[in-house]
Amino acid sequence: MARSDTKARMVEAAKESFRLRGVTATGFSEILERSGAARGAIYHHFPSGKAELTQAVIASTAADVSGLIRALFEQAESPLEAVDAMLDLCIAAADERDGDLGCPITPAVLEADGDAATLAAGHRAFALWEAEVAAGLEGAGHDVSRAGALATLIVSAIEGALVLSRAERSSMPLRRTKRALSSLLA
Amino acid sequence: MARSDTKARMVEAAKESFRLRGVTATGFSEILERSGAARGAIYHHFPSGKAELTQAVIASTAADVSGLIRALFEQAESPLEAVDAMLDLCIAAADERDGDLGCPITPAVLEADGDAATLAAGHRAFALWEAEVAAGLEGAGHDVSRAGALATLIVSAIEGALVLSRAERSSMPLRRTKRALSSLLA
Repeated sequence: MARSDTKARMVEAAKESFRLRGVTATGFSEILERSGAARGAIYHHFPSGKAELTQAVIASTAADVSGLIRALFEQAESPLEAVDAMLDLCIAAADERDGDLGCPITPAVLEADGDAATLAAGHRAFALWEAEVAAGLEGAGHDVSRAGALATLIVSAIEGALVLSRAERSSMPLRRTKRALSSLLA
Repeated sequence: MARSDTKARMVEAAKESFRLRGVTATGFSEILERSGAARGAIYHHFPSGKAELTQAVIASTAADVSGLIRALFEQAESPLEAVDAMLDLCIAAADERDGDLGCPITPAVLEADGDAATLAAGHRAFALWEAEVAAGLEGAGHDVSRAGALATLIVSAIEGALVLSRAERSSMPLRRTKRALSSLLA
């Protein structure tokens, strides 16, 4: 199997483990098991260790989700429809797993313990998503300053509702957040 | 020093450590050092170990913050003023610490790794805060269903904005979230 495939599988395995139990509690042995990679792959692909893997998880999640946000805004007839679609994706995924869903970036940021490169990667990810949402809002006529503030609210609300849903083991907090955003943005 | 004082100091020390680096990365030795408690205090006050301490941190934070939310709604002339005041408290605390602020319940939930008692404690905390915010909104004339949805949005948005502010090492995400909520709730 190509080296890049192994690396990508390790990143996907780490995303899942970070979501389930956080970064500190995730050992490389678990990532090797989940990804089917050989032990040497750690030193080969992530020579600087856990922080480097964590930053790769953040960058991969950032790119995937920003592409998704852009596609949803392109397909939607209004920003409200796009925001509803973002929440619907989270709700469907949470329902599939009894709320046991989350964003791998949140634990990476909260467990960074002052690691500047990890925090910066987290900030780039959130800023990218905020910029995609803001661009969608501006495209529908919101002015730049208002679009920026609304975009931060929307990204923050989804990140927070994922945490509430995890605690509640249910998609209900995501559903209530969707309802409130819908009524306010309508 | 009275036993209850020692326990309370250990809980406060754990809150700070959980905020700074998460639950898994926090060792009891750090909590003993921060709180000045003797080693025997762990087994005495938290015989079941880390999960019991984590649930005590969640319960203490839940009570403190719900009292604060209630007081802010009682003092405010409108729900908007109360929500602004909630965000202002977070912004001031974040500014004091270069954004290095957070809620200790979020890492506790995200690192619970399926521990049902810890998740239930997290759910009770968030539900308590949502109920306080919803009561404040209902008191100002919002109907029950709308108040419930808005309360979840407000609690989720603040929890999420705390994570974005941590990553950005700045209170700006909290400030943008405040601006967006103000404009939508006005």
